[in-house]
Amino acid sequence: MSNRRIVLAERPHGAPAAHNFRLEEVPVPEFAAGELVSRTLYLSLDPYMRGRMSDAPSYSPPVAIDEVMTGGTVGQGGASRRDGFAPGDFVVGRGGWQDFSVYKKGEMRKVDPAAAPLSTALGVLGMPGMTAYTGLHEIGRPQAGETLVVAAASGAVGAVVGQIARIKGCRVVGIAGSKDKCAYVVDELGFDACLDHRAEGFADALAAACPEGIDVYWENVGGAVFDAVLPLLNPFARIPVCGLIAQYNATELPAGPDRLPLLFRNVLTKRLTIRGFIVFDFAALEEKFQSEVGAWVRDGGIRYREDIRDGLENAPEAFMGLLGGANFGKLLVRVAPDPTA
Amino acid sequence: MSNRRIVLAERPHGAPAAHNFRLEEVPVPEFAAGELVSRTLYLSLDPYMRGRMSDAPSYSPPVAIDEVMTGGTVGQGGASRRDGFAPGDFVVGRGGWQDFSVYKKGEMRKVDPAAAPLSTALGVLGMPGMTAYTGLHEIGRPQAGETLVVAAASGAVGAVVGQIARIKGCRVVGIAGSKDKCAYVVDELGFDACLDHRAEGFADALAAACPEGIDVYWENVGGAVFDAVLPLLNPFARIPVCGLIAQYNATELPAGPDRLPLLFRNVLTKRLTIRGFIVFDFAALEEKFQSEVGAWVRDGGIRYREDIRDGLENAPEAFMGLLGGANFGKLLVRVAPDPTA
Repeated sequence: MSNRRIVLAERPHGAPAAHNFRLEEVPVPEFAAGELVSRTLYLSLDPYMRGRMSDAPSYSPPVAIDEVMTGGTVGQGGASRRDGFAPGDFVVGRGGWQDFSVYKKGEMRKVDPAAAPLSTALGVLGMPGMTAYTGLHEIGRPQAGETLVVAAASGAVGAVVGQIARIKGCRVVGIAGSKDKCAYVVDELGFDACLDHRAEGFADALAAACPEGIDVYWENVGGAVFDAVLPLLNPFARIPVCGLIAQYNATELPAGPDRLPLLFRNVLTKRLTIRGFIVFDFAALEEKFQSEVGAWVRDGGIRYREDIRDGLENAPEAFMGLLGGANFGKLLVRVAPDPTA
Repeated sequence: MSNRRIVLAERPHGAPAAHNFRLEEVPVPEFAAGELVSRTLYLSLDPYMRGRMSDAPSYSPPVAIDEVMTGGTVGQGGASRRDGFAPGDFVVGRGGWQDFSVYKKGEMRKVDPAAAPLSTALGVLGMPGMTAYTGLHEIGRPQAGETLVVAAASGAVGAVVGQIARIKGCRVVGIAGSKDKCAYVVDELGFDACLDHRAEGFADALAAACPEGIDVYWENVGGAVFDAVLPLLNPFARIPVCGLIAQYNATELPAGPDRLPLLFRNVLTKRLTIRGFIVFDFAALEEKFQSEVGAWVRDGGIRYREDIRDGLENAPEAFMGLLGGANFGKLLVRVAPDPTA
């Protein structure tokens, strides 16, 4: 039996291309005492991976050339030399873009397929959901009656951000990249409004959808969406900065004028808070997140949508599409059949 | 007896000019039951006044055309129809650029000339000192061993910011606009270093003065100073935005490229917090401020320097100089002799 894996062949310049990745077959990794080997069922594809492909300074070191692409996975444990795990147990960890991965103690946790579908451990009840929950809890702090705007509203993080804010009593306005996505965000997720940022007159439509301004803007996009948001921000607005997908592939700064002074003037006169964070900054909230969001998922207060592609070999193409918004819902690759589905 | 006052004659375009102000003589204002008339001894001149001259949206409404310029003052009460105040009592309030002002209840408070020189109620123990104290307390949160950088370091706010951070055990690096100011900041105020932002090689010198990066950058300047700071910011750095004096007179945005995406990338990858504030957001800390900073001023832990100009008629020129850094220390106008000095 061999292990197929996708490694970083070279660093992209601008948008990633197929030749930046390489599919290899290698022997299934050896494992030592205390380790567990897991067969990947689902691989999560997330925007942050674009950052790991680059060697620009960031909060995590980049993936090395010829190293397996990093990524969250749900897998099923095979032969185990690890106490407390039986063959067949399901685990979630950072297995990477490959068929098999080996975990040391503390690198994975068990997932109970009876509590929720296994794939949710990579989405609404995994890193993206936790990102949404903790960023609101610690930075956004939505209050009843306030207006929250979230971009990429049908995506893995945005959908949870908006639904939590709805539960908290906010007016919630989503922004998404197509009519279909907007319809889903309003009809299925219960947002008050959703706007297509590609549509003519987007900035005016956003202003109309936020008659009392914006108190929380969840930033996971950057670029033109932020431009439309800035003039609408209310005094004391909070801006959790969680991602900047619209600029990840940029190779140079946009043309001027330089709007840094404009931003700072707004920060000062409106007393804005802009704060970047990474989900693992708030790891202490994991239990609270699982219990609170888990309950909302079970009672239907929070809904989710997955966009599942089959076959590890299709991961690069799916990932490249993700950066342009080609997915609709949490993007996953089914690497092997899910025996619980 | 007449009341000389300086009103806003017209709104400036760019840097304020003499003709934007007008000196008038009017009768001493009438006062009603419960009111107090005060003769101005000191008028405080502060950068925020540039904002009040403009009708761009801000946290406070602008001064109206033909209205007295706004400003903090220390005065001596004359005839009083207000309980608890005797003729001759000293008060601090927002009397504006004029010889006499009338206060209603709650618009001023008494100042004890035995506790500290009267003028300090407009500086180290007044609004600028409180700005420094509260912004650090609520946003900057300097921890022992961290590095704090503050621009306009010899100014009314910057000097207090740096000295508090020193007391808290930080490495403190000031930035100021001349050799003399830098010498004062290091020799008198005890900063670890101070750099002239007008000197050749400023950015490199700042990097050398901050070998472990920057954990707190106190922003009261904007512009080129921030550019030198940005690459040095450490993960989780905090940036209280208190003022932007370097850009108050700007009439247009600088040329490109547009560095907004660069800023946001730094916010995300370094998990920065950028937060604007106004001193009155933290009014609840007034008592704590007076007690803590008052004690430091009395024991010499915090020192201060005043730049006092004589004559109300010279206020416009002094203020215009302030925006270019022509003052050295807290800028005040002595409107009438201080009987306690």
